[in-house]
Amino acid sequence: MPSEKTATVAITRIGAAPESAEDVVAVEEPLEISAAWQSEGVLREKTISVTMRTPGDDYDLAAGFLFTEGLIASGEDLESVRHWGSPNKVRVALTPGARIDASKLERHFYTTSSCGICGKTSIEAVRLTLGALAAAEPVDASVIRRLPAILEEAQTAFRATGGVHGAALVDRTGRLLCVREDIGRHNAVDKVIGSYVRERATPLPGTILMVSSRGGFEIVQKAAAAGISTVAFIGGPSSLAVDLARDLGMTLVGFVREGRFNVYTGVVR
Amino acid sequence: MPSEKTATVAITRIGAAPESAEDVVAVEEPLEISAAWQSEGVLREKTISVTMRTPGDDYDLAAGFLFTEGLIASGEDLESVRHWGSPNKVRVALTPGARIDASKLERHFYTTSSCGICGKTSIEAVRLTLGALAAAEPVDASVIRRLPAILEEAQTAFRATGGVHGAALVDRTGRLLCVREDIGRHNAVDKVIGSYVRERATPLPGTILMVSSRGGFEIVQKAAAAGISTVAFIGGPSSLAVDLARDLGMTLVGFVREGRFNVYTGVVR
Repeated sequence: MPSEKTATVAITRIGAAPESAEDVVAVEEPLEISAAWQSEGVLREKTISVTMRTPGDDYDLAAGFLFTEGLIASGEDLESVRHWGSPNKVRVALTPGARIDASKLERHFYTTSSCGICGKTSIEAVRLTLGALAAAEPVDASVIRRLPAILEEAQTAFRATGGVHGAALVDRTGRLLCVREDIGRHNAVDKVIGSYVRERATPLPGTILMVSSRGGFEIVQKAAAAGISTVAFIGGPSSLAVDLARDLGMTLVGFVREGRFNVYTGVVR
Repeated sequence: MPSEKTATVAITRIGAAPESAEDVVAVEEPLEISAAWQSEGVLREKTISVTMRTPGDDYDLAAGFLFTEGLIASGEDLESVRHWGSPNKVRVALTPGARIDASKLERHFYTTSSCGICGKTSIEAVRLTLGALAAAEPVDASVIRRLPAILEEAQTAFRATGGVHGAALVDRTGRLLCVREDIGRHNAVDKVIGSYVRERATPLPGTILMVSSRGGFEIVQKAAAAGISTVAFIGGPSSLAVDLARDLGMTLVGFVREGRFNVYTGVVR
């Protein structure tokens, strides 16, 4: 039985022959963590972080995040940790005397790609900015089957270290157009897309983005921003990645390994 | 020959018997991306993001990040993309008329864990906040060999989906103390540590943190914040993760798979 951590989706499993099947994917939803504390008699409240997470143990996540980032000194600083008006919002109230040092927030935190406060809002926001993403055209299964070998062949740092993500853009015949590597999978994708942005060569219709990682919402969003309508992952996609790809008319395939893969949305022939 | 993307480190390889060896790891360094543009005749300049990345293709990363996050409309907005006073800083100058919409920054971005502006600064910052992390005691190789099975056994969502990261805390005999899962590896670690923070049970000396992912700087930093002195990864560590663990007297093992693993720093007996 699926937990809140997982969701069941209908897929087409491509092995020797295509078959309809169900697959269990990891749920991905944003969590907003805010903190409230007294400062000189005034109640201060601040959104600390919005992070894409798998629901469950949200109070542990909020407490752990504040602690490991040095924003609270210990569990003694916690008055309460509660969901706050939404299952995707947690509010941490601090004990009297404890406070969040705003200068630490600026020094120790940095911004990264986001989707907004809740899955629905963010999906709508992407639609608004993207407008006219062309629906994905059918992709040849034979090309998808070759993607892992194409990526692995091109990834020089991965061969050396075994510890670097890769992203590759290929055309519909499987010809490699661009490959980039980074310890961060989002960065590898940004590097591929950025190489075309710098050449004023976006959007990129009719191309396929292959990523060496699991498939999260943010990667699908980045691909869509660049007009890439087909995304392929060596790992599995998240619930929100599948939702977004389906809503945008994209093709999303996952677990592309050893000649097999799953079609989560879109048409593969 | 190592590129800027990789670095060579001395390790002990533990298989049937320990042997000294060299391993190539992925380089991890922070990159600060800033943007400059004219607004009503005034030059505006703003740090947009600090991200941990593998050096190389930094201009692609900066351009791609601004584009895929909707902060610029296309490559036409780019006047220049240059390193700016440091190999870890890139400045994007926008063409006349183009600008970064600050409200978009607030709406579309979120904060997450960071290390500061450059590896050295951040390593020093961690030392300052941590102070008295106890040096790692030697760990039994037999316990480390069992970690992947312990983690896999405990990870219910991973078994269902194949797409969720797991973090487990075990004691020095290999007894499972806590396991948490999340689509984000940093979140899985925060959930484990947060469960102890909420119980006012940190620090956690004499424990081992096992993570199903590659090992980056930020995970080592989070473990250190909780007083966990031994970290183990199924994947490989980054250059900065090894540096930090060594500087803090921690034990870091990687590529823990099929009865073998690499000791990057610390003592395994």
